[in-house]
Amino acid sequence: MKYSAINFKEKFDKFSEHFSPKIIAQMNEYFFKLGKFQGDFIWHKHANTDEAFIVLDGEMRIDFRDNKVDLKTGEMFVVPKGVEHKPFAKNECKIMLVEPAGTVNTGDAGGDLTKEEEVWI
Amino acid sequence: MKYSAINFKEKFDKFSEHFSPKIIAQMNEYFFKLGKFQGDFIWHKHANTDEAFIVLDGEMRIDFRDNKVDLKTGEMFVVPKGVEHKPFAKNECKIMLVEPAGTVNTGDAGGDLTKEEEVWI
Repeated sequence: MKYSAINFKEKFDKFSEHFSPKIIAQMNEYFFKLGKFQGDFIWHKHANTDEAFIVLDGEMRIDFRDNKVDLKTGEMFVVPKGVEHKPFAKNECKIMLVEPAGTVNTGDAGGDLTKEEEVWI
Repeated sequence: MKYSAINFKEKFDKFSEHFSPKIIAQMNEYFFKLGKFQGDFIWHKHANTDEAFIVLDGEMRIDFRDNKVDLKTGEMFVVPKGVEHKPFAKNECKIMLVEPAGTVNTGDAGGDLTKEEEVWI
């Protein structure tokens, strides 16, 4: 067992790519991932799992087909499984995602932005 | 589906009790809980689950039988299942816990500090 704190700033300093969350911790079969969001992501859904978004620094929006949620530092939202959503951030926004290991960033949508491999930092 | 951000400050303003985490969100079978820690908690372990501690504001320590982890704002640690631990905070520390629904705060230890009921705020 590794007895050391996981520091978000140290982890964020290790990558710059947008919409490519990196794993920083595991709890049972779930991963905690840090991500930097900027611009428009794509519409997608996760058929088999909810997905938690926690904003650590900045502002973002999650668009739904019939609504939206604005999030800022110190706020979170859980997107229910099967619900189409599209993350957006005008300026770079630092977030934490919590979701089951194996969750693909683009869900069922595929495409160029898909990260098939989940990467630890 | 409820389309609104969950704001940590608004939730923290709703309770003052120490070592009594309150549920603010659910993701699949897991709860996100906010807690205010101050002083010494008790030694305990969770036989069937890991437990994630995320420090939102302040400093705390998790003691283990053979080690310790110091945590401050912007840091996290996942206590592995079955590992005895004792949270401590000199001054009030605001944290988020992530753990399966039904996880009792004192694990297998019981005693006066046990909260049998998980409460939403």
